[in-house]
Amino acid sequence: MAQAGGPGAKKGILERLDSGEVVVGDGSFLITLEKRGYVKAGLWTPEAVVDHPDAVRQLHIEFLRAGSNVMQTFTFAASEDNMESKWEAVNAAACDLAREVAGKGDALVAGGVCRTSVYRHHKDEATVKKLFQLQLEVFTKKNVDFLIAEYFEHAEEAIWAVEVLKQSGKPVAATMCIGPDGDMRGVTPGECAVKLVKAGAAIVGVNCRFGPSTSLKTMRLMKEGLRTAGLKAHLMVQSLGFHTPDCGKGGFVDLPEYPFGLEPRVATRWDIQKYAREAYNLGVRYIGGCCGFEPYHIRAIAEELAPERGFLPPASDKHGSWGSSLNMHTKPWIRARARREYWENLLPASGRPFCPSLSQPDA
Amino acid sequence: MAQAGGPGAKKGILERLDSGEVVVGDGSFLITLEKRGYVKAGLWTPEAVVDHPDAVRQLHIEFLRAGSNVMQTFTFAASEDNMESKWEAVNAAACDLAREVAGKGDALVAGGVCRTSVYRHHKDEATVKKLFQLQLEVFTKKNVDFLIAEYFEHAEEAIWAVEVLKQSGKPVAATMCIGPDGDMRGVTPGECAVKLVKAGAAIVGVNCRFGPSTSLKTMRLMKEGLRTAGLKAHLMVQSLGFHTPDCGKGGFVDLPEYPFGLEPRVATRWDIQKYAREAYNLGVRYIGGCCGFEPYHIRAIAEELAPERGFLPPASDKHGSWGSSLNMHTKPWIRARARREYWENLLPASGRPFCPSLSQPDA
Amino acid sequence: MAQAGGPGAKKGILERLDSGEVVVGDGSFLITLEKRGYVKAGLWTPEAVVDHPDAVRQLHIEFLRAGSNVMQTFTFAASEDNMESKWEAVNAAACDLAREVAGKGDALVAGGVCRTSVYRHHKDEATVKKLFQLQLEVFTKKNVDFLIAEYFEHAEEAIWAVEVLKQSGKPVAATMCIGPDGDMRGVTPGECAVKLVKAGAAIVGVNCRFGPSTSLKTMRLMKEGLRTAGLKAHLMVQSLGFHTPDCGKGGFVDLPEYPFGLEPRVATRWDIQKYAREAYNLGVRYIGGCCGFEPYHIRAIAEELAPERGFLPPASDKHGSWGSSLNMHTKPWIRARARREYWENLLPASGRPFCPSLSQPDA
Amino acid sequence: MAQAGGPGAKKGILERLDSGEVVVGDGSFLITLEKRGYVKAGLWTPEAVVDHPDAVRQLHIEFLRAGSNVMQTFTFAASEDNMESKWEAVNAAACDLAREVAGKGDALVAGGVCRTSVYRHHKDEATVKKLFQLQLEVFTKKNVDFLIAEYFEHAEEAIWAVEVLKQSGKPVAATMCIGPDGDMRGVTPGECAVKLVKAGAAIVGVNCRFGPSTSLKTMRLMKEGLRTAGLKAHLMVQSLGFHTPDCGKGGFVDLPEYPFGLEPRVATRWDIQKYAREAYNLGVRYIGGCCGFEPYHIRAIAEELAPERGFLPPASDKHGSWGSSLNMHTKPWIRARARREYWENLLPASGRPFCPSLSQPDA
Repeated sequence: MAQAGGPGAKKGILERLDSGEVVVGDGSFLITLEKRGYVKAGLWTPEAVVDHPDAVRQLHIEFLRAGSNVMQTFTFAASEDNMESKWEAVNAAACDLAREVAGKGDALVAGGVCRTSVYRHHKDEATVKKLFQLQLEVFTKKNVDFLIAEYFEHAEEAIWAVEVLKQSGKPVAATMCIGPDGDMRGVTPGECAVKLVKAGAAIVGVNCRFGPSTSLKTMRLMKEGLRTAGLKAHLMVQSLGFHTPDCGKGGFVDLPEYPFGLEPRVATRWDIQKYAREAYNLGVRYIGGCCGFEPYHIRAIAEELAPERGFLPPASDKHGSWGSSLNMHTKPWIRARARREYWENLLPASGRPFCPSLSQPDA
Repeated sequence: MAQAGGPGAKKGILERLDSGEVVVGDGSFLITLEKRGYVKAGLWTPEAVVDHPDAVRQLHIEFLRAGSNVMQTFTFAASEDNMESKWEAVNAAACDLAREVAGKGDALVAGGVCRTSVYRHHKDEATVKKLFQLQLEVFTKKNVDFLIAEYFEHAEEAIWAVEVLKQSGKPVAATMCIGPDGDMRGVTPGECAVKLVKAGAAIVGVNCRFGPSTSLKTMRLMKEGLRTAGLKAHLMVQSLGFHTPDCGKGGFVDLPEYPFGLEPRVATRWDIQKYAREAYNLGVRYIGGCCGFEPYHIRAIAEELAPERGFLPPASDKHGSWGSSLNMHTKPWIRARARREYWENLLPASGRPFCPSLSQPDA
Repeated sequence: MAQAGGPGAKKGILERLDSGEVVVGDGSFLITLEKRGYVKAGLWTPEAVVDHPDAVRQLHIEFLRAGSNVMQTFTFAASEDNMESKWEAVNAAACDLAREVAGKGDALVAGGVCRTSVYRHHKDEATVKKLFQLQLEVFTKKNVDFLIAEYFEHAEEAIWAVEVLKQSGKPVAATMCIGPDGDMRGVTPGECAVKLVKAGAAIVGVNCRFGPSTSLKTMRLMKEGLRTAGLKAHLMVQSLGFHTPDCGKGGFVDLPEYPFGLEPRVATRWDIQKYAREAYNLGVRYIGGCCGFEPYHIRAIAEELAPERGFLPPASDKHGSWGSSLNMHTKPWIRARARREYWENLLPASGRPFCPSLSQPDA
Repeated sequence: MAQAGGPGAKKGILERLDSGEVVVGDGSFLITLEKRGYVKAGLWTPEAVVDHPDAVRQLHIEFLRAGSNVMQTFTFAASEDNMESKWEAVNAAACDLAREVAGKGDALVAGGVCRTSVYRHHKDEATVKKLFQLQLEVFTKKNVDFLIAEYFEHAEEAIWAVEVLKQSGKPVAATMCIGPDGDMRGVTPGECAVKLVKAGAAIVGVNCRFGPSTSLKTMRLMKEGLRTAGLKAHLMVQSLGFHTPDCGKGGFVDLPEYPFGLEPRVATRWDIQKYAREAYNLGVRYIGGCCGFEPYHIRAIAEELAPERGFLPPASDKHGSWGSSLNMHTKPWIRARARREYWENLLPASGRPFCPSLSQPDA
């Protein structure tokens, strides 16, 4: 198969989006690998790329099979301030793993940076930018296809990241972990989108912290902000795989269930099909997930948008559309579930009658 | 490391149980690999051992790291009536994968058989036993350490399985997928246990179909049945990783959420620690899981019983007991979650206010 | 209109039940008058018959209009041990109020006694019986139509009450406030029913403490107990107007919501129609309510059983069957609610997403 | 006692509010009397004042005992377009009943008008005003103490009502049945308040259609609107006694549970104490209720604000503050409920695990 960046290379991210293609993102690494035993909650760092590369590779493969067009390097929080001397090896190994798997299908490699610890403690622009610069050097050497600045709760820091990343000449996507109320200083989603595009991001949106429907509300505001400002950019959404109608400005980390009691909130595949459709209708063309998005959630995006895209992902070999694989079951009442109306209208019970439906956020 | 079955071999399953050790079982293969994209719901067959061995191996490794002492061959429904000509290759490959991973730690290999399709259609003893016999031949050739007959809804078929398996001379465990109301013909859990022990099972219990607390109710009845009959046997429980207080005699397959809307029912790690403790207090010493049990659920068993066993599993390197890894978080209200009382008492919300807490089973 | 007890008198309670008629009981006095401002929770005594007779009369009238065939004297806990010197005036006034209202329609007057405080503290038969004897003397002087011994949690005390009341020669009904687990000493519902009938009760059943469906479970057990013993008696049920699937042996008083947070548990009129139908199908012919039963709940019984009885109660002038009065509404989606299927299938939301569905009883 | 309007008369409504006093409104007539059997749902008209005056009088008395300072004439929908020839007798009888009961305590009589049917069909100002004029003539003849224009969903019609009513020279209060989204034509709560004050209302606010917390949100917007416009007026709130966090612009009538399945939404007394406190803190001094407000809910307002007012209402003789009347209960776990923290923090269960927490409005 053709190498990305080389002759006969895959279409680049902007080439795809400019032509109106849907780009399916990937899903959850930290939360998913925590449940598989390779990431420590609280730290949320990606040493696994070095210590347990098989586990990380396997997850990349699952997302690829599920239909992802992007293998994002597992470099969340892999800046020097979080990982000390290990940072460089981690970033390099993450690139190699992403590239290896991307080569097995129609996926691009995206180098990812996110908010720094330094920024939270003091807001020195040069120090923060230096951290991004270091990661970017690895990404450049490894020749990733494009760059993602994600999980920023301050527009200011996101802008700094975009300013650094765009120096590479590669396309830059920027997503913030904000909800409809905007960033930590009250910069609205619309303003955030405008600032990020002005800073050089070709793709803007949100990731993490908020569930599917809340994230789409934020996207609506970003879209409106860009429209009002007369700016054009591609839209991208990578929401949580958890339902969080009850979260406040800080998102799911402030919910009492974070991070070890979120199970009842996990979205079904049908919830995600609805999310994909609504994102598409809103004009978002880069649609993926963040914490809580398992491979089958990504497959749900690819299946929902298969009519538009014209193909199903490899993992759909193991999935009947809308439950159709149940149509051979021996019990007639289970066969009766092999249809779209059934799953679209199902209101799944929690099996937890002593638990509430919503929680009060701690902050 | 010493080879199982050879000189310096690991302690066998009965040696462990007879000496009072806790044996930690493994977890979910079908449901977990369905979500990873390798198993087709409805069929629920294990071709993945041949088609995607890396994915199966990875899951075995995760359970091993989580503390499992048993690598059960991924041979669910792998009898000839379900898999036709592929059956032999599947059983053989499954044994090899299990053995390969078991060799990396303190785990035994268990060859597994389950209820047949033939039995449901006509109840010819010879035909059914022949199917078990075929699988047993592979298990014998591959020299598994012991055998498990599981997921039987009729005591009669389970007995036939035990009768075949015990011919191997290897220890036989037998678990039924029944609840407190007993098997499909109304044979009570106590009677089932007695019949299985009389047929030659050294270990008896339940697996699948019912959630943790319901499964433990059934175990209590099995234990009482054995006591009343004056029989001795080891007890084993491998419940669902889903809460199903609302299911009827048929278990979770009859719930409207089965199999694609079970997410809100997934147990937390804390739910599983409670289950492990209650199982232990009841005298059950072989404690594992079935559908819905992810690696971190198995780790929860190993962590809960670490005081009794004297050690933690490898994957606990990536887990702070009772949320202790949150104690360095920058937000004080998240640090406040780094304690046992918090997670033990949490009543997690579903984030789904339009959904009920319980469902009416379809049958 | 003919006077009860005189020439041309109304049919007596046994005459009605013997001929297969449905007798509609009345509803809640204590809880309802607490909400209206005339009864003090905790004390739960009926001084209102003397202090605020208009309020009590009004409630009797509402139940009469709703279809009640029985005006039970508001003499709950009106024995001398609870009310001291006021007891006699209260019992007398309660009889007068009940008789006055019963005279306005087709209703009988029932004098009611319930468990004593004395019994809880020491179990002296003579002392307890003396308390019932005193109340009976007032009931006899006031010439009530029949007698009800209700709200007993010990079969023994209920039997003592029946033994005293039957000396009057009037028909005696006896109901216990027990659930399927039986009385406080473990006497089963079936045994309770048998003992009460042997003691002289012509009508037996349950009242209070448990919701509609639990009360009907208990009735099934009582019916079965009588059948097994070869005894005949009329069956009577007066359940709570609250849903209590989560209560334990002690019933709703042990739920954390008792008595000031029970609102979300209040039954709808449709729930009560279902209860009336199921009670009828079970063979119960004296069907009423206890705490939480408002006049419209009693009307729901009368409306559900109107086909069998051949008439509607007066208050149905103000009620369209199955919501039919909505069929003139200006909003079409509200008109669409004017039909039986709608209300029968409605799953009403609590509007309380932060609250659980069930509670753990305190005892 | 002194007659209202005569020498030694009670303090008028504005005198009270101007001096900073809290005025406790009354509660639900239509919904409450529907449950008692005197009002027909769908029609929602007050013939009961003529047909069953004892029932209406009794409810007035209960609210008076609960602490109401206002006996509002039960003249909801009693305009000529709804009641035809009966309208005059109904309005007159309603005034007499209100005055009779008001005379027994410290309460004023308020004549009430509400939105007309005519307005919904065609919007002829003269016709609509004529209807209000007719009712006002009765109110004037009966010498009510002040006037209330309530339950308007269009600011325009409310203004017409105020314009008519103020001709009497009596104080006019005006409340709309709107939520935070404003009236049916999108007039915001702030604008509505401003328009009503400019039209001549001395007291403005909201009543009905929305639950306590939503109604207070609307009040906040009204207050802010008045502040911005530099206008002064007294604030008044009479919310539903139902929790309706899920309702849309049309309020509770659009919820699927309206009107016969609202039970699980009924507020507890503690919910209402919270509402009273928050209303007070917001600066609202006329605090009452609408549909679903039973006498004990009104008492809860009076009890919550007893420290500010310096006295308890008569019905508090039958109520221990914060459950204190439970402190003599024989069961220790029930005695443990005799304290404020218990009831303030209780999250009451619905006893309905098959029902959702929230509903989707039909419109």
